[in-house]
Amino acid sequence: MFKVNENFAKLPGSYLFAGIAKKVAAFQEAHPETEIIRLGIGDVTQPLAPAIIEAMHQAVDEMGKAETFRGYAPEQGYEFLRDVIAREDFQSRGCDISADEIFISDGAKCDAGNIQELFSPDSVVAVCDPVYPVYLDSNVMAGRTGLYHEETGKFDGVVYMPCTEANGFLPEFPKERADLIYLCFPNNPTGEAIKKADLQAWVDYANRNGSVIIYDAAYEAYITEEGVPHSIYECRGAKTCAIELRSFSKKAGFTGTRLGFSVIPKELVCGSASLNAMWSRRQGSKYNGTPYIIQRAGEAVYSPEGAKQVKEQIDRYMFNAKTIRDGLIDAGFTAYGGVNSPYIWMKTPNGMKSWEFFDYLLEKAGIVGTPGAGFGPSGEGYFRLTAFGTYENSLKALDRIKKL
Amino acid sequence: MFKVNENFAKLPGSYLFAGIAKKVAAFQEAHPETEIIRLGIGDVTQPLAPAIIEAMHQAVDEMGKAETFRGYAPEQGYEFLRDVIAREDFQSRGCDISADEIFISDGAKCDAGNIQELFSPDSVVAVCDPVYPVYLDSNVMAGRTGLYHEETGKFDGVVYMPCTEANGFLPEFPKERADLIYLCFPNNPTGEAIKKADLQAWVDYANRNGSVIIYDAAYEAYITEEGVPHSIYECRGAKTCAIELRSFSKKAGFTGTRLGFSVIPKELVCGSASLNAMWSRRQGSKYNGTPYIIQRAGEAVYSPEGAKQVKEQIDRYMFNAKTIRDGLIDAGFTAYGGVNSPYIWMKTPNGMKSWEFFDYLLEKAGIVGTPGAGFGPSGEGYFRLTAFGTYENSLKALDRIKKL
Repeated sequence: MFKVNENFAKLPGSYLFAGIAKKVAAFQEAHPETEIIRLGIGDVTQPLAPAIIEAMHQAVDEMGKAETFRGYAPEQGYEFLRDVIAREDFQSRGCDISADEIFISDGAKCDAGNIQELFSPDSVVAVCDPVYPVYLDSNVMAGRTGLYHEETGKFDGVVYMPCTEANGFLPEFPKERADLIYLCFPNNPTGEAIKKADLQAWVDYANRNGSVIIYDAAYEAYITEEGVPHSIYECRGAKTCAIELRSFSKKAGFTGTRLGFSVIPKELVCGSASLNAMWSRRQGSKYNGTPYIIQRAGEAVYSPEGAKQVKEQIDRYMFNAKTIRDGLIDAGFTAYGGVNSPYIWMKTPNGMKSWEFFDYLLEKAGIVGTPGAGFGPSGEGYFRLTAFGTYENSLKALDRIKKL
Repeated sequence: MFKVNENFAKLPGSYLFAGIAKKVAAFQEAHPETEIIRLGIGDVTQPLAPAIIEAMHQAVDEMGKAETFRGYAPEQGYEFLRDVIAREDFQSRGCDISADEIFISDGAKCDAGNIQELFSPDSVVAVCDPVYPVYLDSNVMAGRTGLYHEETGKFDGVVYMPCTEANGFLPEFPKERADLIYLCFPNNPTGEAIKKADLQAWVDYANRNGSVIIYDAAYEAYITEEGVPHSIYECRGAKTCAIELRSFSKKAGFTGTRLGFSVIPKELVCGSASLNAMWSRRQGSKYNGTPYIIQRAGEAVYSPEGAKQVKEQIDRYMFNAKTIRDGLIDAGFTAYGGVNSPYIWMKTPNGMKSWEFFDYLLEKAGIVGTPGAGFGPSGEGYFRLTAFGTYENSLKALDRIKKL
């Protein structure tokens, strides 16, 4: 009899957000009268910007004519998109990244899940705690962890780096050696950012220890403060130790449109093995390119009009973030994040457990958030709210929370 | 120092089609005057059908308005698409497949590459020889094979099932036990189909031996003969032993638009492990859904106008196939396929090696095909031509070949 991949059985329950979606659906069915406000999953609500819509209409028309029809895309992505990304996202910030180090994909989640395939099965993985579940789940499925323990909320064989109030939500260098270090800044779920000097220290650490940093910069467009790096390649030496993941989901509202990219510098090597060449081989064999129409949509994000429109959307979300954060603090709650990211990381009141607070908030206020414990044991006692709703709903949610 | 996945080093050279693309680009640069006819990679040339274009314009407009904007898609795909697929592709053929057994993806290549993740790392893999490279390459990367031997063109630890003139290009049951059996019908690259009774025998074999069949039906829309199954679920017992992969690339010209799906029946279990549940977990953790716009495009393929337009496109490609096949046979070549598939599998003349014939045909006639040896050792001495060009180019290519 064939055998399944037994590592799947190590995963506790379903994917975090899928589990929450089911809970919310069950609640809504039982309480059809409740107007639920969704500040849980980080899903955007503003429509795609006009410049993007226009670019897609044009691309759709091209696909309808023989002269301009496009079949298989270049596997690494169209040059028109890789070129503008290299220029606008990196070279304009002084990062020496070229178009052939950029790999277009259908989103950062896929890349975050797939990137581990490049590394040895016995690699030791370090993650922040709390953490976006994909980094860990994909390594569990690949067999890089031991068993999960419900009591601790941890997998054996994983290096956890707690990010707590005590350390300002910045991970400390682990005592154990790690081969792969996943970092996400501005952070999901804590919403806190990293200063350039602190990120430089991580780059130096990784180079010194022969580790690779998988740097998830999905929220970089939300940075508002000076001194907070938008890319890890702003740090000296990052090209020999870091892969960066980027997303259009939060930058331009592409959660349902699907576009992202990975940066794998040519200097990132292990002996004679180039990670850039390996990823090219991986994508060439297991991926078939991102839709032409979507790549044109991505290009429009960088046009003068597109960039302006997208910036206005982000400003609106960040106004929500400020409103929620300040409102919570005014009401006596403790809350972090929301300055360089669209996430607010609030402390649950009266030491409530985070899943308990999830149920309480859903039942009493009709608000969906994400329990901190879902992101890891150090997330216990916290709760993530997103700024991706409408301003009206953000205000309404705040009002309902204050009245609890 | 971190270590890479050493299995990548087992792969000989680059992904087949990427390698050919580079060779052709180099030739074109050296011979800018040659008008190259591309019958190599299976890429379509007809524009998307009007009904599909219309559906995409409408979906793009929806994405531009707050009331109709769509964020993250349901991870398994929108119900509107899964429902119509279940009904039109399966239930209408008497296959008892329901919408919750269908997983929408961005194409069959990704699914074909990723599906192996569900199985134990020590699973024994059986593939046809010749074969579409993705099945094998993805298992090599996952460590399910031994080393590659240039002399034999084979990996250690893989069960090869030769498909040759002698057995009518139908694989025979392997002598060795295999856990995963990859079958593709109508076949890429040979272009030959399987009769229902023969496929039933494979289903019975798999159920008897506790094997799983990964059935790639990417070319089912090209079937013209009665008695050739469109789905493996037309066979009794297939739901307990088979996963089916489907593609919109060839059915509706989506090579640059990206849409496909996998069917994983709920009856497909190993002890208490449900492959349907495992794939749901895998996709939930490592995939983030197919763009809404593209799923609407897929839905339009099944509308009365869409279905009619798509059928006309397929008929045009199949007229090319017939033209090429009959023309080659008339000219004294031996050629297979082209009746239930868009591929013609010709024997190289005078016992030429297939890569030798590739160079010869490119240099002397400016025609790009795919050398049979690129698909496996039993492909040696064969050459794949596709019917996806225009009719004019198909005729022109035939004419150039006849004049050689």
